[in-house]
Amino acid sequence: MPERLSDIGEFGLIDRIHALIRREGFRSNRVTLGIGDDTAAFLPRSDCELLVTCDALVEGRHFLPDRISPFDLGRRAMTQNISDIGAMGGRPLYALVSLGLRKDTAVSWIMALYRGFLEEMKPFKAAIIGGNLTESGNGLFIDITVVGEVVRGKGVHRSGARPGDLILVSGYPGESAAGLQLLLHSKPEKDRLNHPLVQRYNNPTHRAFLGAALAETGLVTAMIDISDGLLGDLGHLCAASKSGAEIFKEKLLLSDNLRRAADHLGLDPYDWVLGDSDDYELILTCRPEHGPRLQILTGLETSVPLTEIGRITKSAGAVSIIQADGTRSLAKPSGWDHFRKKNQPAGK
Amino acid sequence: MPERLSDIGEFGLIDRIHALIRREGFRSNRVTLGIGDDTAAFLPRSDCELLVTCDALVEGRHFLPDRISPFDLGRRAMTQNISDIGAMGGRPLYALVSLGLRKDTAVSWIMALYRGFLEEMKPFKAAIIGGNLTESGNGLFIDITVVGEVVRGKGVHRSGARPGDLILVSGYPGESAAGLQLLLHSKPEKDRLNHPLVQRYNNPTHRAFLGAALAETGLVTAMIDISDGLLGDLGHLCAASKSGAEIFKEKLLLSDNLRRAADHLGLDPYDWVLGDSDDYELILTCRPEHGPRLQILTGLETSVPLTEIGRITKSAGAVSIIQADGTRSLAKPSGWDHFRKKNQPAGK
Repeated sequence: MPERLSDIGEFGLIDRIHALIRREGFRSNRVTLGIGDDTAAFLPRSDCELLVTCDALVEGRHFLPDRISPFDLGRRAMTQNISDIGAMGGRPLYALVSLGLRKDTAVSWIMALYRGFLEEMKPFKAAIIGGNLTESGNGLFIDITVVGEVVRGKGVHRSGARPGDLILVSGYPGESAAGLQLLLHSKPEKDRLNHPLVQRYNNPTHRAFLGAALAETGLVTAMIDISDGLLGDLGHLCAASKSGAEIFKEKLLLSDNLRRAADHLGLDPYDWVLGDSDDYELILTCRPEHGPRLQILTGLETSVPLTEIGRITKSAGAVSIIQADGTRSLAKPSGWDHFRKKNQPAGK
Repeated sequence: MPERLSDIGEFGLIDRIHALIRREGFRSNRVTLGIGDDTAAFLPRSDCELLVTCDALVEGRHFLPDRISPFDLGRRAMTQNISDIGAMGGRPLYALVSLGLRKDTAVSWIMALYRGFLEEMKPFKAAIIGGNLTESGNGLFIDITVVGEVVRGKGVHRSGARPGDLILVSGYPGESAAGLQLLLHSKPEKDRLNHPLVQRYNNPTHRAFLGAALAETGLVTAMIDISDGLLGDLGHLCAASKSGAEIFKEKLLLSDNLRRAADHLGLDPYDWVLGDSDDYELILTCRPEHGPRLQILTGLETSVPLTEIGRITKSAGAVSIIQADGTRSLAKPSGWDHFRKKNQPAGK
């Protein structure tokens, strides 16, 4: 029988985690106090703003333990926080990991989860410097706080978009939503876990390096990462910028995988592209004359495209979708809403 | 019927919380970006170390909604984090609040919870600058990250105690444990909630101002706050300091309330004083010649005593209790352990 949390206890687990992080994690000389005291402590750089964000994953709501490996789950949990830092143009420095666990959780599962966290932090030489462990009555939860930094004045906010700005998006939004559908419509078979779209859901890629490179140019007027879907997050960006947007449907990219999955399930692929999907791609805006330069930079930094999909408008709060034939329709506001009743109108 | 979370949805709730914080919270001019973007951002002071800590409260495990008001619960959740910052000698600056909620959670309950958070932050002019909201399948959870600061070189760690140092403790540890017992042995009646010991459990007081004042002297060699009980946390301090401790039982203070409650329930009050209890009092160590000065300072800062209860010894890991007649016994290592099986020996 595998070793369970109840076999080693809270303080036994803390020792194991501590040892794992010492062995496999990065150590920063700006950290004056890591895991094992009342708080962690670090020395900030005086030329930077500090960024801080937190995000939680809840069992049953955001993940099913039999549909994702603990290593991938750890990567996903860390990626979504790194993505938030990247959407500011910053880089992650430190993480605090707060876990809600069960007595019967396997110790090896928790260790693999931490290896997933560390895997995503490695490229940034970022360190886990603290956290909290508690028993959770029912479902597991993973709540991560990430501290990052951005050079003063270089941070890109959601609120800077102006009418006339181009709207650009990285990669292929919607692939994550498609992967989730494939996962939900399949038995928990190993094979399915290797499907490229399921991988996009279970093991998404942040664009934090790209975000930092784009922010560095000073040409990005607003930026947000996609965790609530393209329309949902574009809506957040427009709301913060007190403006609206129009999207040219024909400019939205559909990957071959996405088309095939939509055919297979008999669904409209644009529902995935526009609707709820946590792809951790970037939506950004810039003056029209700067679009090409940002696209070239993206080509140098990554293998994914940065696609111009529309324009910022003056119509505060309104996002329109323009079809190839020129007909225009007002997009339904979208984005995950965790609490809204199912039978309520989408004001969600 | 009261308004439920499902009536207003996630984004409706975010708007309410945002408005509450704008109206009743403190705004810091070092915060360059508050709630409502991908991350929060702030400008650090160059002469300070930053401190960061997180702590979670889980329904059923750490609180029962029918035994504590949401306002008190909010205060308690924030207090335990502020206490950790205080145990470093620092002061809290910012908080991120991550909540796991149910669709049927009353909106007024959540607003009262936030008022509790803000109540505890007010004395420090500290601000809530971010967070996360999610649906939690079953129990509620409240996970708070607090960022604080301490002047460089003034932070007090757990690891600085040396053999011969005095051990001092603030206030009356054990009162919180007694309050919990009274609460568990009573029906959920309003009257019981007003009992001073129940108040110590439901509405504990941190010693962060005292911690900062003591740290400022430069005379405190090690410090920790009591969240795992006096023996548990003294054990953590000794472990970090690679030393042991001896406690003189007759020096441990018993408040009148504690004595009476122990009589009432037929229990040994010293089990509360020494055992699992989250009192958020401070345990600290100093060279023997500095004890009186720290006690006088405490008298000026607070209304609670700072009591000398024992000495740090060379016996790494061993905590002894010395009775009035001189007999000595090795204390059982203690401290909450969330995961250990009940039938296992206390190595917990």
